[in-house]
Amino acid sequence: MNRYKIKIEYDGTPFVGWQRQENGQSVQGCIEKAISNIFEENITIFGAGRTDAGVHAMGQVAHFDVTDKLLEPYVIKNALNDHLRPFPISILEVEKAHNDFHARFDATQRKYLYRIVNRKSPLTIEKGRAWQVHKDIDIDLMKECIPSIEGQHDFTTFRSAHCQSDSPIKTLDSLKISQSEENIYFGFTAKSFLHHQVRSIVGSLKLVGENSWSPNDFMNALNSKDRSQCGALAPPEGLYFMEVKY
Amino acid sequence: MNRYKIKIEYDGTPFVGWQRQENGQSVQGCIEKAISNIFEENITIFGAGRTDAGVHAMGQVAHFDVTDKLLEPYVIKNALNDHLRPFPISILEVEKAHNDFHARFDATQRKYLYRIVNRKSPLTIEKGRAWQVHKDIDIDLMKECIPSIEGQHDFTTFRSAHCQSDSPIKTLDSLKISQSEENIYFGFTAKSFLHHQVRSIVGSLKLVGENSWSPNDFMNALNSKDRSQCGALAPPEGLYFMEVKY
Repeated sequence: MNRYKIKIEYDGTPFVGWQRQENGQSVQGCIEKAISNIFEENITIFGAGRTDAGVHAMGQVAHFDVTDKLLEPYVIKNALNDHLRPFPISILEVEKAHNDFHARFDATQRKYLYRIVNRKSPLTIEKGRAWQVHKDIDIDLMKECIPSIEGQHDFTTFRSAHCQSDSPIKTLDSLKISQSEENIYFGFTAKSFLHHQVRSIVGSLKLVGENSWSPNDFMNALNSKDRSQCGALAPPEGLYFMEVKY
Repeated sequence: MNRYKIKIEYDGTPFVGWQRQENGQSVQGCIEKAISNIFEENITIFGAGRTDAGVHAMGQVAHFDVTDKLLEPYVIKNALNDHLRPFPISILEVEKAHNDFHARFDATQRKYLYRIVNRKSPLTIEKGRAWQVHKDIDIDLMKECIPSIEGQHDFTTFRSAHCQSDSPIKTLDSLKISQSEENIYFGFTAKSFLHHQVRSIVGSLKLVGENSWSPNDFMNALNSKDRSQCGALAPPEGLYFMEVKY
């Protein structure tokens, strides 16, 4: 048995999400089909994180096992990218992994980036690649929320009702908010995230930036541990799964 | 008569280019149709520069005249963006202009940006938004070409056979080449450009960056004033019309 680790970039727009599903084209499904064709056996891949429909990835990681055929990593990479040509999925790296490596369970850190474009005119080149917010956003107000959200908390407020995690308690290692012209970036780092955690937090921070919520309202929403206190979920197209560390 | 000046952003992918043509959808045609609907008269717009099929704009400028109706700029902007919703065209600014203002002839400076993504794996999120170059590029080699191309020259080598300009002599005010991770940026500033000038220069600089041409070969190509000495034209999807100054 040979285990391989791959690093993947994708444009989430045309997919039902990372995870293989009955009802549509998934990133996992497309890659599995390509790998299975190359190795002529049915292969399952295991991703470091599930991304929802429309969410992008710059550095998703996955692993898979092959029973017989031993191919050089660069041969696999080229063959995969060739098979995946019809889809906006790109294999950035392929390497041989230890047989006990697990893309999901061995991850020690994950990074997500969320991007808002703050302007009134419609998006063109960046359409589907950022959340367009019309009202003026004050990033200094949003930054005031950082101390209340970093660290270990019960994130029930910022967690999907469908989240499969055992516990709502997570540690957000850091949140960095920055601005470059009309772009506002939110960088999240943690060992792991709850379902919809980043989009829930950004949706609520946006209310603070627009001056609809005070930073104190944001802190109270977190402390309420009540999902109904969350701001409207930020849309998927602004979210990027950037990096996984092991 | 009322003259208006507008600033326009567009994703060039689905268009035959800026200029109205018989055989397909143009940016100019889409905007003219929208303006004509709003003002209920046939209106022609005059752009600061013609962009080819697939070329993008972040700051194209145009002007147009309206016979009767006087509308506030923000009303025009909102109505235009509403009418243009089916297309990746966005009106960034609308202002009232003097009756002798001309978007093309009054321009004192134009800026273009060309972007290469230098990597082997296919593009996904950036597909259609940059030129993917597989071979490793050394930007220091390309930078050595800057002194030979800046300033006033006969740019016949870097000019389309279909160029309608009276003279091949132009002054390139500045060329800046920079790198950020896998992105390589070429910033061009001049009063005006010849047809295909930027894409011709970038196509030739890429040969230098790949070590197929020496910086001296590049200088000789320019000095030959011979179109056949130009490197292969860089594709349109990496080119952005950034800004016009008056």
